[in-house]
Amino acid sequence: MLSARPLAGLPEISPGDDLGALIAASLRDEPLDDLDVLVVAHKAVSKAEGRIRLLKGIEPSERAIELAARVDKDPRQVQVILEECEEVIRASQGVLICATRHGFVCANAGVDASNVPGEDSVVVLPLDPDRSARELRMRIGELTGASPAIVITDSFGRAWRVGQCDVAIGCAGIGPLEDWRGRSDAHGRELKATIIAVADELAAAADLARAKDLSQPVVLVRGAGRHVIADDGPGAQALIRPRRRDLFR
Amino acid sequence: MLSARPLAGLPEISPGDDLGALIAASLRDEPLDDLDVLVVAHKAVSKAEGRIRLLKGIEPSERAIELAARVDKDPRQVQVILEECEEVIRASQGVLICATRHGFVCANAGVDASNVPGEDSVVVLPLDPDRSARELRMRIGELTGASPAIVITDSFGRAWRVGQCDVAIGCAGIGPLEDWRGRSDAHGRELKATIIAVADELAAAADLARAKDLSQPVVLVRGAGRHVIADDGPGAQALIRPRRRDLFR
Repeated sequence: MLSARPLAGLPEISPGDDLGALIAASLRDEPLDDLDVLVVAHKAVSKAEGRIRLLKGIEPSERAIELAARVDKDPRQVQVILEECEEVIRASQGVLICATRHGFVCANAGVDASNVPGEDSVVVLPLDPDRSARELRMRIGELTGASPAIVITDSFGRAWRVGQCDVAIGCAGIGPLEDWRGRSDAHGRELKATIIAVADELAAAADLARAKDLSQPVVLVRGAGRHVIADDGPGAQALIRPRRRDLFR
Repeated sequence: MLSARPLAGLPEISPGDDLGALIAASLRDEPLDDLDVLVVAHKAVSKAEGRIRLLKGIEPSERAIELAARVDKDPRQVQVILEECEEVIRASQGVLICATRHGFVCANAGVDASNVPGEDSVVVLPLDPDRSARELRMRIGELTGASPAIVITDSFGRAWRVGQCDVAIGCAGIGPLEDWRGRSDAHGRELKATIIAVADELAAAADLARAKDLSQPVVLVRGAGRHVIADDGPGAQALIRPRRRDLFR
């Protein structure tokens, strides 16, 4: 059985906070297991890492001003988005679809104003979310003696479908993809083209378990141990479709 | 806490089977609750509804033959795909990305050879998966006295990301989208543009809980009761992005 439950008692995260220690403390009554998965909303990670930009004082470029007018956004916020992204794929209908510097394709390059204390700031994605996941895993290991897998998530919209689903933007200790190609189905026939985005499904399952106001950024998932691995693994980078294989860019 | 566990003891489904009765029977020792969600892989539904096409005797059209050569597929299977789809969006790299007659955008219009008994047949999507979900809900209600929500799923690839995630193609008794626009975050700031694709996240969570060889097509999800509704709701049609709002078609 798969289970997902949010951790209670995490304080508001601020730059410089030791997020691993805060998570370990909030787990006090619940011994962690090496086969557990901790799914962490990236905003908690971004805030701990100081990935907050104050809009005051940001000088939007001409391009930012032009794009901001097109999508009806604050030009300073668009300037931050441009600094976070490698390519603007679409600018339409109030949204900038961008490829981030990591290679993720998402709205506004993951730059988000919600859940930030103070009106005049935005949270940006961690510089290297896979590294953040590895560091969090190591820190929690030091403090608890267990090395659960870590999945760092963001809410992404999707082409063709309404609404957002949480997906993995960083992970450690988990196989992000489960490759069933070459294995057999229940009738002994080879399964074709079935690679399951396990880390994204974990992100989605965890999102269902928590309150969306982000007062519960960390969710403990149990029962997914067959996807947990001893080493850190390839990280969420493995979930990025290589450009030459991408039919929608 | 959210939990997901596959139902055991379901037999191989065949055309004409009373899927609701088979599910109810497999639940014998587990009383259902109105707030439960049953997540059902569409192949079980499609098979019960006889949505199986024998490839023998299918005459591929010229267009099917031409596309089949381009993506290296059986022309008869491509003929079935063309009959299931409204539009071929991409034909490249061994895959046909199609908009199905329902409006879902997915590979091969959901036509799939895996997990079908007999080499020479393919399973196609239910004609109206939302109706299938409503009927299954009603039938299970008749037999058990409880009216759990039903989510019917398929595994879809995604633009920009590697791997497949299960998503909802039909549902009843669940709000497929949770709209947080206008609500406040933990700092009292209005959340912007946050609509959560709850039915898709349920599909993903359930997929993690089951064996992928489809010997476990039905997963019982508990702890998602706040998304369960008394009426059938808008169904998974609400998850289809209207064409005029679609930046990637």
